[in-house]
Amino acid sequence: MAAANLYDLDATEARRLIGERKISSLSLVEACIARIEAVNPKINAVVTKAYERARAEAKAADEAVLNGQPLGILHGLPIVIKDLNKTEGIRTTYCSPLFENYVPDQDDTVIARLRRNGAIILGKTNAPEFACGSNTTNRVFGPSGNPFDPSLTPGGSSGGAGSALATNMVPLANGSDSGASIRNPAAFCGVVGLRPTPGLVSSAERSFSLSTNGVEGPMGRTVADVALLLAGMAEHDSRDMMSRPIDPSIYLTLGHVDVSTLRVGLSEDLGFAPVDKVVREKFRSKVDKIRGAFAVCEDSKINMQGAEEAYMGVRALYLLAGHGAKYAAKDSNLSPELAWNIESALKMTPMQYATAHVEQTRLYQVVQAAFDEYDILITPAVNVLPFPWSTPFPTTLDDRPARHYAEWFSITYAVSLVGHPTIALPAGLDPQETRRAKPDVEKLLAGPDMADAKSSALGKD
Amino acid sequence: MAAANLYDLDATEARRLIGERKISSLSLVEACIARIEAVNPKINAVVTKAYERARAEAKAADEAVLNGQPLGILHGLPIVIKDLNKTEGIRTTYCSPLFENYVPDQDDTVIARLRRNGAIILGKTNAPEFACGSNTTNRVFGPSGNPFDPSLTPGGSSGGAGSALATNMVPLANGSDSGASIRNPAAFCGVVGLRPTPGLVSSAERSFSLSTNGVEGPMGRTVADVALLLAGMAEHDSRDMMSRPIDPSIYLTLGHVDVSTLRVGLSEDLGFAPVDKVVREKFRSKVDKIRGAFAVCEDSKINMQGAEEAYMGVRALYLLAGHGAKYAAKDSNLSPELAWNIESALKMTPMQYATAHVEQTRLYQVVQAAFDEYDILITPAVNVLPFPWSTPFPTTLDDRPARHYAEWFSITYAVSLVGHPTIALPAGLDPQETRRAKPDVEKLLAGPDMADAKSSALGKD
Repeated sequence: MAAANLYDLDATEARRLIGERKISSLSLVEACIARIEAVNPKINAVVTKAYERARAEAKAADEAVLNGQPLGILHGLPIVIKDLNKTEGIRTTYCSPLFENYVPDQDDTVIARLRRNGAIILGKTNAPEFACGSNTTNRVFGPSGNPFDPSLTPGGSSGGAGSALATNMVPLANGSDSGASIRNPAAFCGVVGLRPTPGLVSSAERSFSLSTNGVEGPMGRTVADVALLLAGMAEHDSRDMMSRPIDPSIYLTLGHVDVSTLRVGLSEDLGFAPVDKVVREKFRSKVDKIRGAFAVCEDSKINMQGAEEAYMGVRALYLLAGHGAKYAAKDSNLSPELAWNIESALKMTPMQYATAHVEQTRLYQVVQAAFDEYDILITPAVNVLPFPWSTPFPTTLDDRPARHYAEWFSITYAVSLVGHPTIALPAGLDPQETRRAKPDVEKLLAGPDMADAKSSALGKD
Repeated sequence: MAAANLYDLDATEARRLIGERKISSLSLVEACIARIEAVNPKINAVVTKAYERARAEAKAADEAVLNGQPLGILHGLPIVIKDLNKTEGIRTTYCSPLFENYVPDQDDTVIARLRRNGAIILGKTNAPEFACGSNTTNRVFGPSGNPFDPSLTPGGSSGGAGSALATNMVPLANGSDSGASIRNPAAFCGVVGLRPTPGLVSSAERSFSLSTNGVEGPMGRTVADVALLLAGMAEHDSRDMMSRPIDPSIYLTLGHVDVSTLRVGLSEDLGFAPVDKVVREKFRSKVDKIRGAFAVCEDSKINMQGAEEAYMGVRALYLLAGHGAKYAAKDSNLSPELAWNIESALKMTPMQYATAHVEQTRLYQVVQAAFDEYDILITPAVNVLPFPWSTPFPTTLDDRPARHYAEWFSITYAVSLVGHPTIALPAGLDPQETRRAKPDVEKLLAGPDMADAKSSALGKD
């Protein structure tokens, strides 16, 4: 197999070929490094690189294969890690100036697990500061570009991960998702992102762990790759209050599902979300094409009215727990988005917090009741189409003014609120056909570098 | 077997005899009714009675046995229900004047489950108003008396349950526990009370369900009875965010444990709790008697410093969620204890709430780390010995002033905070020997009724 094409391999295929000694991990790592070097200047997805260690680890991985040693689930596979996760020996900024030069001396639990299962870290991916928001731009690294059109946002907070995957820089990336941070970039970049049940991918770093927020999960280009990565990320950890004993290997063999037996409920807005007309129309036209495949496929009556206030309350307490002390510190130097969040959280009343948590349970029961009728709920992944990264957030939603900077993914965070597992799957073109099923990387390569965009966004010359 | 002794039967034995047609459910029910009628006036444990329906259900239960029908886990067994649980057709006051005449038209989920499994409700047990506090007295029913000395409190909030069990009025009672409400009355009355892992005994009525508060659980006179009742109470309910699929029948057969293999950690104060000297001394002397039975039995270094502030914060949000609206209503007529709790909760800052939840996770990890070293942790159940019910709460703890009305069970609620399963087991006499291993019911019967105490507590003539 020609090395020039190795970066196009899906993870599942690459892992098989490594195990069968048909490709080496080193050749795959070199192909991905070359791809990052070529494409990354156009979209600024990978913001810190760790090539030398990756090469050394790939060599060791190849020796393990040749020596017939037991191989991990992710043995020899390149991955990029969100810069919100601590990586031992690799700069970890949380995309904040406060941590611009921080090099951790240990990995986050989930990263240690990925490495123990054989994954090789090529670098760190871009995100908003402290993952707060869903437009991937920050004061350390500037914006990331959407691989379908670099003037648009790839979504976020795992925006670097989404755009790196879509351009075949790497076959695997991790993400994390409080409101929408795995699914928005998956949807905007045309890849697959899974937000698992809280606790399945356990983490000792979830400092407010009895929560449906702060969920780590896998991203990839195919469902099979996401399942493979889930098997390498999921594990019981007794330090996470949401974690339960599990056998992650169950995700290595996805059972066959006879879709003709499935009962599918549809909702274009979950009964409350301001979803743009263009998204509603596209959703309906896409759904019409698959409707006949299922036993039942109909509009559900699910009504998550109240999810907006409930999620913003539950989220506010979580953000305050994570960042309140930083905000209170003198010269806190937080991004305006994060500062706005903390200020809003500090203004909320105890009764608002209490009500938000009661509403969370009520809406959980609403969703559970829907699953008495349906096996699957399908909704749009995001309320809007990708917008320019230079626009902080859409100010109009479904023909009315947006209430706050995060409302454009309210259909996404409504599901986060209740903690159900949820996956964003590519479903084709948007109506302007600015996006194709895969980004046109040749066109990207012929276009401008993002260096200028970064300077301009960061206010530098 | 003489009917006069039936009320002395443990639940496990009674259930076996019913299944073997050696006793009838009706004879057991009549024996328990007679016992309640004789003893209850002395301690005011059972505050609402449902004898006629119980007799009819017992007759039906006996017919089912004679007809060879399948029998539930709790078939034909009498039980009393805490007056904090809705019981269809039986007055349910929550021990508050607000609900003095409320007769629900359906059971709480956990009560419906008990009845489906064959239990027969004889009546409702006393508690503090809305279960808030641990001294069982309220404006509807007055105080309950401790069966060892009716001038003392039986603890609470499941105080009626504890004292009914201790005097053999019934073999089974349910309880519920946010801070200490199953374990305090078990400890003060010399019976067994289990606070299970949150979600194991699921409840659709937990309106703030992603929480370690508001846990329902079984109480009885023996560990075997408590396990039997747990099997009849535990069930997966998809409406409770903490619930997970389980097979409750595992609790019907308690495995044999070789105690000589167990590693036991001891703590007389969990590193922070103001435990009275008399309790510390008794704890040490009791532990010395069993120390040799284990592989390891030593003082653990567990330090739950911070549990006080964390628990009061987590609890405040939970109480506000449950009762904030009632407090806000005009002419709210809540007890002073509950009003104090809501007022305190309304005064807390968002940052205090956030910090409390971060501390909850940190302390959870502290306890988890202790279980790397030990199989079991043993502590005193409560900080103090039983005190007069006429005293709202102990004002001095471990020779210093109490900080608030609930601090006398801080060693108990520290464990609630982290959500670990925890059981209160009888361990014998207190130093004054005011209590024996079992209450002296003959002496109780020769003593005064509580009617006067109730009038005086309620401020009536």
